[in-house]
Amino acid sequence: MTSKWGRKIDFEAGRVDLTHGSGGKAMAQLVDELFVAAFDNPMLAKKNDQALFEVPAGRMVMTTDGYVVSPIFFPGGDIGSLAVHGTINDVAMAGARPLYLSASFILEEGFPLRDLRRVVQSMARASRDAGVPVVTGDTKVVEKGKGDGVFISTTGVGVVPPPVVAPSGDRALPGDVVIVSGTIGDHGVAILSSREGVSFETSVESDSAPLHRLVARMVEVVPDIHVLRDPTRGGLSATLNEIAQQSGVGMLIDERAIPVREEVKAACELLGLDALHLANEGKLVAICDRRHADGLLGAMRADPLGRGSAVIGSVIDEEHRFVQIETTFGGKRILDWLVGEALPRIC
Amino acid sequence: MTSKWGRKIDFEAGRVDLTHGSGGKAMAQLVDELFVAAFDNPMLAKKNDQALFEVPAGRMVMTTDGYVVSPIFFPGGDIGSLAVHGTINDVAMAGARPLYLSASFILEEGFPLRDLRRVVQSMARASRDAGVPVVTGDTKVVEKGKGDGVFISTTGVGVVPPPVVAPSGDRALPGDVVIVSGTIGDHGVAILSSREGVSFETSVESDSAPLHRLVARMVEVVPDIHVLRDPTRGGLSATLNEIAQQSGVGMLIDERAIPVREEVKAACELLGLDALHLANEGKLVAICDRRHADGLLGAMRADPLGRGSAVIGSVIDEEHRFVQIETTFGGKRILDWLVGEALPRIC
Repeated sequence: MTSKWGRKIDFEAGRVDLTHGSGGKAMAQLVDELFVAAFDNPMLAKKNDQALFEVPAGRMVMTTDGYVVSPIFFPGGDIGSLAVHGTINDVAMAGARPLYLSASFILEEGFPLRDLRRVVQSMARASRDAGVPVVTGDTKVVEKGKGDGVFISTTGVGVVPPPVVAPSGDRALPGDVVIVSGTIGDHGVAILSSREGVSFETSVESDSAPLHRLVARMVEVVPDIHVLRDPTRGGLSATLNEIAQQSGVGMLIDERAIPVREEVKAACELLGLDALHLANEGKLVAICDRRHADGLLGAMRADPLGRGSAVIGSVIDEEHRFVQIETTFGGKRILDWLVGEALPRIC
Repeated sequence: MTSKWGRKIDFEAGRVDLTHGSGGKAMAQLVDELFVAAFDNPMLAKKNDQALFEVPAGRMVMTTDGYVVSPIFFPGGDIGSLAVHGTINDVAMAGARPLYLSASFILEEGFPLRDLRRVVQSMARASRDAGVPVVTGDTKVVEKGKGDGVFISTTGVGVVPPPVVAPSGDRALPGDVVIVSGTIGDHGVAILSSREGVSFETSVESDSAPLHRLVARMVEVVPDIHVLRDPTRGGLSATLNEIAQQSGVGMLIDERAIPVREEVKAACELLGLDALHLANEGKLVAICDRRHADGLLGAMRADPLGRGSAVIGSVIDEEHRFVQIETTFGGKRILDWLVGEALPRIC
């Protein structure tokens, strides 16, 4: 098979080599035959070093995230779809409508082109399904042993629709209610179960999903949501503690109210982990005035990605900014952040 | 020394460990004591997962680049300043005014915190000097041997001022003139000379610099510049060939007119390289209508970063889209892209 570049790239048996990041012909061909073909949009097809688009006057959001998840393919997703969902979600957590994404790939020499194609095509599919195109990108290659297959950094921009008061981590007020949009810990367990050397079977899949449509429903019903955040790395416990710090408040959480799948509970017991420390990639925490709680819950439950929404506690006036949790057995403990060894490369 | 986090981070003897990317307390402390402190702006200080800013209605530009340069410190710059300059330049090459940057760090376990601080502070300085703040970011950590110290992916957004017709790689027309803004090959030689195992001495420093102010002068004088591009990876030869491909034209370049430092020529001779294949990080190629050439050159030479600007050739009607070069010795050759082995990790 030939193309305007001469011999077509062998995506079945080929591997990434240093010329794919060199700025020369091999790179231009890879961009043409893989990235431009998969992401298939007029901005990328122009092959300039940047994308151009029109925006309305108003408030804009920008967010960035690096993805280094290991393994790159896991139950319920892969590093490509995760990079799209995760960044869309960070844009959405500002109450914004995501518009465009950029993607920076750092590839390791020797990485199978077949895997790269699978990741890029999955990324393109996730982007199309979410209606948020990848409009510009970059590819670098590092020597074998200086990277790990593929890392992706994704940046998203979006606009905040005018009547929305932007949710922010520093706006939680005593008396507010704390809501989660569904089961906790699924992504973390899915990744851990697919790691080498971990010997347990589970049917749990990552919850990786784009939450922007759920958020659009939510802000339509309650334009003044105080806080929106997705509990990714560090899990629900890190997210609640961060918000408590930023807002200068405490929280009182009811452990029994937190939705956790039985399979996730079982896996956590087996591995000696706490589901509240595990990453989620398709869930959000919302904090709002108590008067708006029912309306917000109704809007959330009407969305396929918010069906399992539940009130899990409330914001309290507490000088130490502690997040307290009432346990299943009726006791009370401080829900601390993960301090020591972490779960590396969960996203 | 203590902080609200307890013991302060030891930036002299400490090293990056996996907890710095875990989403827990160690990461939050690193963000606080290094990133928020260095970049010092109210958007980052909010510590939400995204930045919010107001934009006027109009045309917006978005661009992203990964930086994997090796070594990370080199004469004339480091990976931090390079990541700021390179991304500002990609925004500027659309004729746009850069507004904001985001930065995604992928760190290797064991990387000295002292080096990380040096990189981040350099990045912050470059960003301040250019007047383009880093408003949001992310940090991930991979295990020792799965990365290489630090990789940075930077994304930039900017706005195109209304009277400007956006320059684009597909707008070169036969008869147009081709201009470069100064000496070619400096960055490439500076990097190569600082690599281990390379045994030559040179006084050449990287030309790494932000070109947005130069571009602002240029579009003020000539609002309709047909093409603007910075010849980074692959050097001048890749850039000219890309433009020829995109525009469906040929080019005729006069080798004697291309500014190259004597030290760069000497280094190229020693290493068996062609300066036209070497990366530049503070130079641009401009292509415009012949009638505008004098005006544009005048504007460029009035800027400190365009003082060495020169016309190096012209765009021609040529069906094979070849870039031809008239050599110093009066001959003519095709200026091809780098095909085989490249200069990896030059940016």
